[in-house]
Amino acid sequence: MDEPAFERVAVIGLGLIGGSIALALQARGLARTVVACDPNLTQIAAAAERGLIEQGYSRATDAVVGADAVLLAAPVRAILTLLPQIGPRLEPGCFVMDFGSTKQEITGAMARLPDHVGAVGGHPMAGKEISGLDAAESDLFEGATIALCPTTRSHEAARARADWLVSGLGARPLWCDAAEHDAAVARVSHLPYLAAAAVATAGRPDGLARELAAAGYRDSTRLAVSDPRMMLDILLTNRDAVRPAVHALRCVLDDLERHLEQQDEAALEAWMRRARALR
Amino acid sequence: MDEPAFERVAVIGLGLIGGSIALALQARGLARTVVACDPNLTQIAAAAERGLIEQGYSRATDAVVGADAVLLAAPVRAILTLLPQIGPRLEPGCFVMDFGSTKQEITGAMARLPDHVGAVGGHPMAGKEISGLDAAESDLFEGATIALCPTTRSHEAARARADWLVSGLGARPLWCDAAEHDAAVARVSHLPYLAAAAVATAGRPDGLARELAAAGYRDSTRLAVSDPRMMLDILLTNRDAVRPAVHALRCVLDDLERHLEQQDEAALEAWMRRARALR
Repeated sequence: MDEPAFERVAVIGLGLIGGSIALALQARGLARTVVACDPNLTQIAAAAERGLIEQGYSRATDAVVGADAVLLAAPVRAILTLLPQIGPRLEPGCFVMDFGSTKQEITGAMARLPDHVGAVGGHPMAGKEISGLDAAESDLFEGATIALCPTTRSHEAARARADWLVSGLGARPLWCDAAEHDAAVARVSHLPYLAAAAVATAGRPDGLARELAAAGYRDSTRLAVSDPRMMLDILLTNRDAVRPAVHALRCVLDDLERHLEQQDEAALEAWMRRARALR
Repeated sequence: MDEPAFERVAVIGLGLIGGSIALALQARGLARTVVACDPNLTQIAAAAERGLIEQGYSRATDAVVGADAVLLAAPVRAILTLLPQIGPRLEPGCFVMDFGSTKQEITGAMARLPDHVGAVGGHPMAGKEISGLDAAESDLFEGATIALCPTTRSHEAARARADWLVSGLGARPLWCDAAEHDAAVARVSHLPYLAAAAVATAGRPDGLARELAAAGYRDSTRLAVSDPRMMLDILLTNRDAVRPAVHALRCVLDDLERHLEQQDEAALEAWMRRARALR
């Protein structure tokens, strides 16, 4: 923790992630002043009331003025819209990092920020299936991995700031290429969400089925309650990696259906053993 | 709890469920004597050492002699093999209940037991993805639902015994038709397991993906580590209900793939909202 604390951090977006960032910045002494922006003024008022922020803005272009760090915690496509808008307003030397779930499009947009800012793509492997400021907590990132993806604006000072911030949040920085990140999360994050949603839909737990649904059902479909708007951004900005993952899932289910139809005990058992070994 | 405790209970199968039954029977004073049988003599020795049972047998036909209650906690197809074998050895008035995960075939086999025994099909909606005697605990059924399915041997006294036993284990009895039970668990238990296994297989979490796999991945694939041999029995004895459930899942994924391919935002969002509402 050799770096000094940020002077003025602008948190863009006050949902679960942005709210938790604001709480953590204060609780852990990572920033002298925390301001925030959210299109929903009720969120701003609630955050101010809870003492999370010193000033609130409804527009990101206002919030970032005078900030030495801008942390973007909005849905992925909102971040993509905001980056070119805030670019011209950023101070020289400003550190920009996002907390969105897909990284290729965002790091691409960061490459078009002014030369004089430092920018790193980030993705915390933490969260909850419930969203919103009410669910925010200062320890949300404690012990979690935060993926960090370099951009053409990730000079050495920016990388050091990102490492320092992630450690300050209690998390572990994991540097990786944006394309590799997106391919990996398509398989271990987006695919599990889609499977949970598909099981909730296909399972249609009504009446007796609902009474018989136990912990296994609840755990395996928990992700299905994720915010659809947030997930929509994720799926659309990671379509090239999500589609082959879904296709792979369908191929595995094709095998399963064939084994069941043919009552092929050996193949069915091998199918299950393979899954267990891979898990 | 008007019923008197059982005099001598024979627990058939000493895995997670059978071991937990034996522990609960003793801890809750539901039986004066508990004996057990398991084809694996090491399990018997371990159970005797832990004081779970008073006597151990390697053959069910020996264990049931003189018992006023026989509780079958073996894999489904083992129960189907055992029922006709133990039938001729059961005392008049003996109470038989199983704890297997599918009910139609088992209640059918119970209908062929001698007239003078009472038999009820049971299925505890509790368990763990890990199996074996080591994982057994006396509170495993506490607060859980235990489905009870009547058979042609479920006269009034047998039903009363089943209700009493389930309550004594700290669980809630839920009477239902065996066919309806099997159709429901295909959708909320067997389908979630199969989806978890399919996601673990299709997700192939290696290298970076493994490092990025968070709680969401772990929860949604937790069921994939279930014992393949136990699941094989479940799937094969519930094939008629599992196949349409898997087919429904594939149809839901077909829709998803089409929406992704066509970048149909409205349809994709509706697909996700429907899943969230059903969950």
